[in-house]
Amino acid sequence: MTEHGARPDWIAADWGTTNLRIWAMAGATDLATRSSDRGMGRLAPGDFEPALVDLAGDWLGPGATPVIACGMVGARQGWTDAGYATVPCPPLGALPVRAPSRDPRLDVWILPGLSQAEPPDVMRGEETQIAGFLALNPGFDGVICLPGTHTKWAQVSAGEVVSFRSFMTGELFGLLATQSVLRHSIPAAGWDDAAFADAIDDALSRPEALAARFFALRADALLNAGDGSAARARLSGLLIGAELAAARPYWLGQPVAVIGAEAVARHYVGALSRLGLVPVQTDAGATTRAGLCAAWRMIRETAT
Amino acid sequence: MTEHGARPDWIAADWGTTNLRIWAMAGATDLATRSSDRGMGRLAPGDFEPALVDLAGDWLGPGATPVIACGMVGARQGWTDAGYATVPCPPLGALPVRAPSRDPRLDVWILPGLSQAEPPDVMRGEETQIAGFLALNPGFDGVICLPGTHTKWAQVSAGEVVSFRSFMTGELFGLLATQSVLRHSIPAAGWDDAAFADAIDDALSRPEALAARFFALRADALLNAGDGSAARARLSGLLIGAELAAARPYWLGQPVAVIGAEAVARHYVGALSRLGLVPVQTDAGATTRAGLCAAWRMIRETAT
Repeated sequence: MTEHGARPDWIAADWGTTNLRIWAMAGATDLATRSSDRGMGRLAPGDFEPALVDLAGDWLGPGATPVIACGMVGARQGWTDAGYATVPCPPLGALPVRAPSRDPRLDVWILPGLSQAEPPDVMRGEETQIAGFLALNPGFDGVICLPGTHTKWAQVSAGEVVSFRSFMTGELFGLLATQSVLRHSIPAAGWDDAAFADAIDDALSRPEALAARFFALRADALLNAGDGSAARARLSGLLIGAELAAARPYWLGQPVAVIGAEAVARHYVGALSRLGLVPVQTDAGATTRAGLCAAWRMIRETAT
Repeated sequence: MTEHGARPDWIAADWGTTNLRIWAMAGATDLATRSSDRGMGRLAPGDFEPALVDLAGDWLGPGATPVIACGMVGARQGWTDAGYATVPCPPLGALPVRAPSRDPRLDVWILPGLSQAEPPDVMRGEETQIAGFLALNPGFDGVICLPGTHTKWAQVSAGEVVSFRSFMTGELFGLLATQSVLRHSIPAAGWDDAAFADAIDDALSRPEALAARFFALRADALLNAGDGSAARARLSGLLIGAELAAARPYWLGQPVAVIGAEAVARHYVGALSRLGLVPVQTDAGATTRAGLCAAWRMIRETAT
C-alpha cells in the first residue's frame, strides 16, 4: 500500500539502462514513487520480474495490478523485446507488448520504441516522453530535443513523429572526460558559463575541428595550467555546439521544446538561446508520467 | 654484446607511453634491436633506469654508453621532464637533457618535444620522426602527417616546423569501438575499403554530423544486422574524414608525407589519394632511427 493507505489502480514504470522508477497511480494521479538502481544493464531476462516485485512490494494487491513500462526494459536484451513502431507515426505508434510473468499480482505491459529506416535510427523511452509532452501540450507542432547519453531531436507534426536523429553527445562527453587523455585536465565537477558559450560559438563556426580542439584542452593544461572548470565547460560546449550545427535542419525556424534532466537541459536551453531561439524547458519526470498515462488510456480503450 | 659480437657506440631509444624500443648503433648503422612493454605509462620515475638496463643488458660495456631517447620518457611524468622547444624552430629545436642515472655504464640523453603557443599544442616523439624524415629527404618543404593515438599534422619549411596541430582521432576510435555503445556493433578486426571510402566522403561533406553518424552505426546494426567489418571501416572513415576536413589548410596544395605504422598510415594515404593528393608513405621505425642519429650527431658536435 502507498503512504496514503490506498492500493494503486496501476503502476507506471520508467525502466532504463541504469535505473528503475515506478509510480503508484490512481487514474492520472500519482500517489507515490519509488526507485532502484536495478536498471536493464544489470539484469538478465529472468531478473526483471523479481526486481519489479521487490520494488513495488506492498503496492501489489491480491488481484493483478497493471504495470505500464517504457524504456530499455523493452530492448532485445531487456525483459521482452517490445519492438519498434516505424516513423512517421504517433509517438505511441504500436500496441504495448505483454511481458512474460509468473506472479499473479502482475500484469506487465511494455511500450515499443520508435525506429527510422533512413538514416537508420532508434529510440526507446523518449517516445513516451514525446507522447507525454503532446498530452500536456496538445496541438504542439515543432521540434523536441531530449538531451541525454544519446540525445534525440524529433520533428513533431499533427500528433506524429515525422523524423528523428540521435547524437552520441552525452556518451562522448563521458568517455572523453573520464577515459581519454583529457581525464588529467577535466575535473568531475565545475562549470564556466563564458567558456561554454565560447565553445558553442567555436564549434558552430568550424564543427569539423572537434578532434583538434579536444587535444588543445590537454595542451592548454600542460602549457598554461588552464582552469579545469573552464576546460570541462568547454568540452561540453564543443560537443553540444557540433550537435547544434548538425541538427540545424531540425531547429531552424521551429518552436523548440527541451525535455531532460535539469542541468543538461539548462545547458541546451542556454546554447539554443544563443542562436536566437526561445526554447521551452519541460521536466523529464512529468512528461514520462504523462506519456505512461496516455499509454494506460490506450490499453484500456483497446480492451473495452 | 649484439648478435654480431660488437658492443654499440651508442644506443638509440624510442620510449613511448606503451613500449620501449632500443637499437644498438655503430655510427649511423643499427646492429640489433630489442623491445619491451615497459612504456612510460607503466613506470614510476625510479623505474626507468632499471627498465633500460634490463633491456640493454650485455650491450652495455665497462665504459659509459651514450643512450639517446625520444618520446614520452621526456614528459613530466617520465624519467625527467625534457621540456619543449617552441615552434617555429627545427624539429630538434633545443638541446637534449641528461637524465639522472646511477649506473656508470649509462649516459642517457632525452630529446625535448615541441610546443606551440596558439592554438596550444604539444608533441613528444614525433619531432624526432620529423627530424629523421628531413635527414632522409633534405630540402623537403610541405606537410608531414603522423597518424597515431593523437595524429599530428606539421607544416615544414626550410628545415623548421612552422606550425602543427594534433587530432585525437586514434584515441576516439579506440574509445568508441571498445568503450561506447558501438562496441556491440564493431568487431576487434575487419575492414571494408568501400565502406571506408564512403565514410571519408560523408565526413568531408558534412563533418559536423559525426555524433549522429556514430549512433547510426548502432541503429543500423539493430535494425538491419549490418556488417561488422563495414561498421569498423566506416567508424574509422568518419573520424579520419572529419580530421581531413579540419586539416584542409595543412594539406591543400602541399606535398604530403605520411609517417606511421603500416596499417593506419595506409588508411591515411588512401583517404588523401581520394582528395587528389599523391602522399609519400614512410616507415615510422626508419624515420625515428634517422632522427635519433641526427640527435646523436648534434650532441657530438656540441661536445667537440
